[in-house]
Amino acid sequence: MRAALIALAALIAAPALAQPAAKPAAKSALTMGDILKASAPSDWRRPEPDNLVYLELASGRVVIELAPEFAPNHVANIKTLIRENYFDGLSINRVQENYVVQWGDPDETDKRPMKAGKAALAAEFDRPVTQGFPFTKLPDADGYATWAGFTNGFPAARGGGRTWLTHCYGMVGAGRDNGADTGSGAELYIVIGHAPRNLDRNVTLVGRVLQGMSLLTVLPRGTGPLGFYEQPAQRVPIKAIRLAADVPEAQRTNLEVFRTDTAAFRQLIEARRNRRDGWYVRAQNFIDLCNVPIPVRTP
Amino acid sequence: MRAALIALAALIAAPALAQPAAKPAAKSALTMGDILKASAPSDWRRPEPDNLVYLELASGRVVIELAPEFAPNHVANIKTLIRENYFDGLSINRVQENYVVQWGDPDETDKRPMKAGKAALAAEFDRPVTQGFPFTKLPDADGYATWAGFTNGFPAARGGGRTWLTHCYGMVGAGRDNGADTGSGAELYIVIGHAPRNLDRNVTLVGRVLQGMSLLTVLPRGTGPLGFYEQPAQRVPIKAIRLAADVPEAQRTNLEVFRTDTAAFRQLIEARRNRRDGWYVRAQNFIDLCNVPIPVRTP
Repeated sequence: MRAALIALAALIAAPALAQPAAKPAAKSALTMGDILKASAPSDWRRPEPDNLVYLELASGRVVIELAPEFAPNHVANIKTLIRENYFDGLSINRVQENYVVQWGDPDETDKRPMKAGKAALAAEFDRPVTQGFPFTKLPDADGYATWAGFTNGFPAARGGGRTWLTHCYGMVGAGRDNGADTGSGAELYIVIGHAPRNLDRNVTLVGRVLQGMSLLTVLPRGTGPLGFYEQPAQRVPIKAIRLAADVPEAQRTNLEVFRTDTAAFRQLIEARRNRRDGWYVRAQNFIDLCNVPIPVRTP
Repeated sequence: MRAALIALAALIAAPALAQPAAKPAAKSALTMGDILKASAPSDWRRPEPDNLVYLELASGRVVIELAPEFAPNHVANIKTLIRENYFDGLSINRVQENYVVQWGDPDETDKRPMKAGKAALAAEFDRPVTQGFPFTKLPDADGYATWAGFTNGFPAARGGGRTWLTHCYGMVGAGRDNGADTGSGAELYIVIGHAPRNLDRNVTLVGRVLQGMSLLTVLPRGTGPLGFYEQPAQRVPIKAIRLAADVPEAQRTNLEVFRTDTAAFRQLIEARRNRRDGWYVRAQNFIDLCNVPIPVRTP
């Protein structure tokens, strides 16, 4: 009867180093675990402290990497708002099942004032490909774009001479009103469910969660429309939001991210396109963009 | 400043009737909200009580619809196990971020005995297309299969003369060991993250959650390998698992599921392929299988 439990242990996703892949079977190809184990220091990068955001909750710290290459104005505004302590004491106001967690100023009538921060910015839905970001193309077709792949550690897509970030699990975006140019980064959301790729190029994405997703995904779902909390007391307080660059080194979270522009990452993609772990009986010879993990580790 | 909050309210997923779509803009095409509002009683079905499972937790009831057409032997075994009270007093033992919640017998050394239930069954990964299930085909390509679509209210795929259920959010499967024929339904898992379609036809799917996902998704993530709880005290007790057919009518959960073999459902697919809600500035003219909602309502 021991089988059943092992069975489920073998039902492995191994989305991060903390969850090593099952021991590879006799099959020849490499697993993700093999690839990470064999990786060189140069296969990893340390995100710039000036692009790392710490969302501090009573339950712990969520670490977000910003993507200034894709959303320079929104990212600059988020940094301004962080540095004027705009977010401190605000709250998570919305948790919608299989969709998003979202925070900002919940008060519609007595809004917290901004200093240098801006409450609305022109949309940054996509960028010209000619801007020359590196792009590691997935070998597989993507229904939402001409090509899908990875740029600077973020899931991204291309088509029609443009490139943009994609709404995969853990991606962070700037909520907006019905007008395309009404977001600013003062209200932010994180994808906590199946990738809502329908949102791609409809809203400005600004970064990705590197650590701490489970501090967000366990939050009670809001029972109001769109998952908003109905009672102010249900809101989850934000102790503070800080840039790592502004935090003493001893208090920073030390993380490395697997680079997405390397031969090792292309090996990882292949290992996930065709799972060789002993448990699998069928390799799919395909992977969709948002199923490719971008490993993060504590060095 | 009211804009920002509305903005996010407009960032709508509307996966269920409980979350009506935003008021449609002046654009002509129908939204999902319009389609559901205009639906006829015949566009909805009541699942058979004999195929409805109630997972009773201290926090409430999770309702699962079984799919005997796809996994007849596993479904029959699950019913046998439920009726011999096999699951009562067992626990949820694993919650892995962006992957699965899983329950069963956590004790490897002193397993709970089965009566007529079986601890292992031949895999039911796929079925012959000639079995003649209705299949509402998605108009869009699917990377994991020749066609993707819906059968009897479940997301499904087809190819090579076979048809199978797919690992979308909320799908329920029978954990197994490394051997393909080692699952039985005595250990079950539910997908709580981005659809792990790599599992398709690697493990037997047996049904889908109709109500109560958020009772599962808020559970603390296990800190052991693969998200297993490290301490027995962390496990989440299962009060009981029952078939609706065995529960007095007054205690049943009254649900209707939107049929997937109707003109109305094909309209819904189109409404989600090209979002016409006023908030959207770009319609994708595409949808991936696991982003199509299958609405459930309380009549």
